[in-house]
Amino acid sequence: MNVVNVGLIGAGTVGCGVAKILMDNSDLIQKRTGIKIKLKKVADIDIERKRPVKIPKKLFTNDAWELINDPEIPIIIELVGGTKMAKDFVIGALKNKKHIVTANKALLAHHGREIFSLASKNNVNIGFEASVGGGIPIIISNKESYVGNNIHSIYGIINGTCNYILSEMSEKGLEFKDVLKSAQDQGYAEADPSFDIDGIDTAHKLSILIMLSYGQFFKFNKFHVEGIRNIAMQDISFADELGYSIKLLAIAKSKNKGLEAGVYPALVKKRTQMADVSGAFNAIYIVGDALGPTMLYGMGAGMMPTGSAVVGDIVQISKSINNKDTNFVPRLYTDKNNSTLIPINERFGKYYLRFEVKDKPGVLGNITKVLGNNKISIESVIQKGKEPNGGDVQVVMMTHEAIEKDLTNALSAINRFSFVASKPTFFRIEDLD
Amino acid sequence: MNVVNVGLIGAGTVGCGVAKILMDNSDLIQKRTGIKIKLKKVADIDIERKRPVKIPKKLFTNDAWELINDPEIPIIIELVGGTKMAKDFVIGALKNKKHIVTANKALLAHHGREIFSLASKNNVNIGFEASVGGGIPIIISNKESYVGNNIHSIYGIINGTCNYILSEMSEKGLEFKDVLKSAQDQGYAEADPSFDIDGIDTAHKLSILIMLSYGQFFKFNKFHVEGIRNIAMQDISFADELGYSIKLLAIAKSKNKGLEAGVYPALVKKRTQMADVSGAFNAIYIVGDALGPTMLYGMGAGMMPTGSAVVGDIVQISKSINNKDTNFVPRLYTDKNNSTLIPINERFGKYYLRFEVKDKPGVLGNITKVLGNNKISIESVIQKGKEPNGGDVQVVMMTHEAIEKDLTNALSAINRFSFVASKPTFFRIEDLD
Repeated sequence: MNVVNVGLIGAGTVGCGVAKILMDNSDLIQKRTGIKIKLKKVADIDIERKRPVKIPKKLFTNDAWELINDPEIPIIIELVGGTKMAKDFVIGALKNKKHIVTANKALLAHHGREIFSLASKNNVNIGFEASVGGGIPIIISNKESYVGNNIHSIYGIINGTCNYILSEMSEKGLEFKDVLKSAQDQGYAEADPSFDIDGIDTAHKLSILIMLSYGQFFKFNKFHVEGIRNIAMQDISFADELGYSIKLLAIAKSKNKGLEAGVYPALVKKRTQMADVSGAFNAIYIVGDALGPTMLYGMGAGMMPTGSAVVGDIVQISKSINNKDTNFVPRLYTDKNNSTLIPINERFGKYYLRFEVKDKPGVLGNITKVLGNNKISIESVIQKGKEPNGGDVQVVMMTHEAIEKDLTNALSAINRFSFVASKPTFFRIEDLD
Repeated sequence: MNVVNVGLIGAGTVGCGVAKILMDNSDLIQKRTGIKIKLKKVADIDIERKRPVKIPKKLFTNDAWELINDPEIPIIIELVGGTKMAKDFVIGALKNKKHIVTANKALLAHHGREIFSLASKNNVNIGFEASVGGGIPIIISNKESYVGNNIHSIYGIINGTCNYILSEMSEKGLEFKDVLKSAQDQGYAEADPSFDIDGIDTAHKLSILIMLSYGQFFKFNKFHVEGIRNIAMQDISFADELGYSIKLLAIAKSKNKGLEAGVYPALVKKRTQMADVSGAFNAIYIVGDALGPTMLYGMGAGMMPTGSAVVGDIVQISKSINNKDTNFVPRLYTDKNNSTLIPINERFGKYYLRFEVKDKPGVLGNITKVLGNNKISIESVIQKGKEPNGGDVQVVMMTHEAIEKDLTNALSAINRFSFVASKPTFFRIEDLD
């Protein structure tokens, strides 16, 4: 029997999921592959903590290096998270010619180039399916199955917390801060939620998707990243009236001048596969030149779905453990069409605009005139009559395609009118093509 | 530079797509993998035919065996289709220790066991991503990424022709035979469409999905297979009124007594990811014990999407061509929980029923009494009043969960009432859990 020992560093939520699958479904994996995966050691700073899965005490150690230096462990599973200790462990293990399986998107987004290069040099593999979209097989699909395609575009709903919050706002008509609070109370959002709701986690994952499709890691601070804090219930409601949902998207589009890439909330047409992704689900929509449009959908996080992806990687690496090739390590390359990021203010696309204005004659005329002067043409307008209790009027518009800096110039000019009650709001509209 | 020669047998639609991708995107593939895939020879019975892609004449031969016996070609792409010549070519190539890439679902459904066994014995790999769902990466995902999961259930919309016809019926309110005719005129359906519309193609693909998830090929004639010929527009319309779409599904559900597997049209709740799969798109929805529910969606057929899947396989096999392992060949095994097929008349599930009856007092009472006597309980009823021009009345019901043979017994009994104008219709309802 072919036995492969693995060492798990980090026995948190996902680590427990991995341990559970390896213990419960070990026979199944063996039937399917002829390989018995054996969890040989588990390293965690807290051995005593009560865990959702019973892992034998004797497997535990406080010292991750015990695993990294164990000659009987060829595969190290890094589930520590973050970019400090995790990086030391991964680099240390690669230096010891261990294969790596990790779910750590931040680590890859920041240090992927160095990690892949070291893996290649040392003839070991690295699996990171769990780093994007939990159990969704996006990494293997993108890397292996779509390999013959020029990728036109990528649209990802890849942060479950954000998608849950937006779905709740939309379904229950609640404001962001109220949904966030209840999500925190129920454990769906972190006590410090900024990593999720400000789009940083999504941007880490986008960085990995772009690397797989376009061959390089971009400097992380070059991405335009916006989160969902500033989405008002009334924008969700107006968007709905216009036939759209608002989703936090990770986006990359291959254009003549380079890559239009970023993370921001966008309007997506309702009754489409992507608009229907609700709650904590994730989905990645990719358009390839041969493939056409394709979407992979599933649970984007959680103990078992993410554990499933980690186990998939472990098994794949185990199957080819005696080979000296490094097929799992993406090869970075420069693709001259997609090697620069187009600044967000050069985005060419459609926009949703909302103006809060005094109810005075000529207001709409003044707004459309400034828009027209800036080459923005209007596709549709909703103007909501004055509320019975007085107050300002909401004017909502959808534009045809325009350049973003023309739009922001126009909005700045409009904001200077005395009839404008508060800074104009805009969201981008994405057609997913 | 690492060059891998491939030989293509069958330069039809998909073959041309493969040739196009290999010619157009060769540099991209080389950047991503370090490998240059070279189309060395193309075999087809018709060399002169006008093709949608310009393949150099000098590559062509009439004789497939020239490729199979060429020592410089390690990978044979079989795109002949069918189970006769294609089988000879595949077996011949495997005997010559060539790796195989094929899109041939019929061949695998009927002879997969023999083909896999020969591939393993001869230390070569076989790629068949293109056999199910065109460009959708379902094979690699199921085999590699979901490997740690017990698969609870599989639901596939995997025949584009059927899904196109059902979508058109639903959107345009047309009857089956009219949509079929227009699909044939436009080239979306074959002149002899029975392979698609009677569910046989779907069943071939189901056979492959079951093998990947449950380890064995079932005898093909053991599946319950129904097509879409007998779906009336009024059933689509009543289903819609009840909040459901009718889709042709490939289904496998792991139950205590075995596998409930088959191909049949079923009612699927609207506004769900699967119900929203329209036109020629395909989708495969799989529920794993760790993974939870997941869906892969995309173009299920066509020159370029299917070509994309074939090229993905070619590249993967090329990357590990110097290894002697046969990681791509599924290992068959017996899983005692899933080694028998549950006969369709033991299906336990919900049903949609339609009765065409004379408008007489007591009809509904008589029907529900017979259903009740057979342990069928009703969830909802629609009764449509008599048409102004007279005629029969339509009574539509949805049942709670019941055993199919109890239902068919009840329907036989009801059919004997003199007030019944035509044989009762039923469809299964699938909750996708």
